[in-house]
Amino acid sequence: MNDSAVKRALTAIVMADVVGYSRMMGENEAGTLQRLTQYRSDFIDPTIALHRGRIVDSIGDSLLLEFGSVVDAAQCAIALQQMIADRNASLPDSKRINFRFGVNIGDVIVKDRTLFGDSINVTARLQTLAEAGGICFSSAAYDQVRGKIDAEFTDMGAHQLKNIARRIEVFALSAQAIGEM
Amino acid sequence: MNDSAVKRALTAIVMADVVGYSRMMGENEAGTLQRLTQYRSDFIDPTIALHRGRIVDSIGDSLLLEFGSVVDAAQCAIALQQMIADRNASLPDSKRINFRFGVNIGDVIVKDRTLFGDSINVTARLQTLAEAGGICFSSAAYDQVRGKIDAEFTDMGAHQLKNIARRIEVFALSAQAIGEM
Repeated sequence: MNDSAVKRALTAIVMADVVGYSRMMGENEAGTLQRLTQYRSDFIDPTIALHRGRIVDSIGDSLLLEFGSVVDAAQCAIALQQMIADRNASLPDSKRINFRFGVNIGDVIVKDRTLFGDSINVTARLQTLAEAGGICFSSAAYDQVRGKIDAEFTDMGAHQLKNIARRIEVFALSAQAIGEM
Repeated sequence: MNDSAVKRALTAIVMADVVGYSRMMGENEAGTLQRLTQYRSDFIDPTIALHRGRIVDSIGDSLLLEFGSVVDAAQCAIALQQMIADRNASLPDSKRINFRFGVNIGDVIVKDRTLFGDSINVTARLQTLAEAGGICFSSAAYDQVRGKIDAEFTDMGAHQLKNIARRIEVFALSAQAIGEM
């Protein structure tokens, strides 16, 4: 019981990455980076701030975000996917950047403004289950947003995620469901 | 989606009350209040502060607490039940004050430092399921503390709580399990 020196926080965790990022970088490194930077500065980073989120980490195409509310986190992820779809619609196929998102909650250890805990790993796995333009939620996150966000969630059932001992129930918002909101 | 003006927070919620408070007040109003005030100032309020908790509300024998971490919340509730048991052990039966605790998490609306949301109601119901000296956890809270707190939780199954639409899975720490920690 004597870990009161460890600072913990119950937090909403969002991870996002770019679908096919390695392939895009292989085809056009400078152009991909330039477009990703543009998406980030044009609307991704401002939208995260607007929804009271914090960018914990950002490496390559990967974003780790933290929110004080999972409803804020979900609304931010939805808004981002909608804006990304809008931006993509104005571009030729070859220039589009598609993201996938994972949303989870976790009682994490906070150290030097970085987050540690298996809920971070779960979020990374959730994100890889999402389709391009879509968002996957753990049941723990879903339980806190259902009834508070008017969206068509799909029950994806229980998943055995890599390196995660217990099965995680997954709920998804498809790109189509997000487009119809 | 336009409720960004509403401030939300994913938070760990603890509620506690005194078992048989009305009966005790009926028997000895001044004495009961005096002893309750003593418990509060001697160790309850300082222990809440030590575990980084905030007293949101306190009416009569009822306490509503908020924590930034559910592990902190659980450790605080356990420490309090241990200290209450110690204090009670030094008193004759008629002077003992027994508490029961409920622990939950919720994405609540925060307004004027007060919390609103159905997770508050769920926590109140959980508390009434706890035995004297015990703590009841929702599965949402339990999922965030298991593996992080070394205690003998009892699976109490799914419960239909009053005025709560969906069934809530409940996990308990008995007074005995807390005493053995």
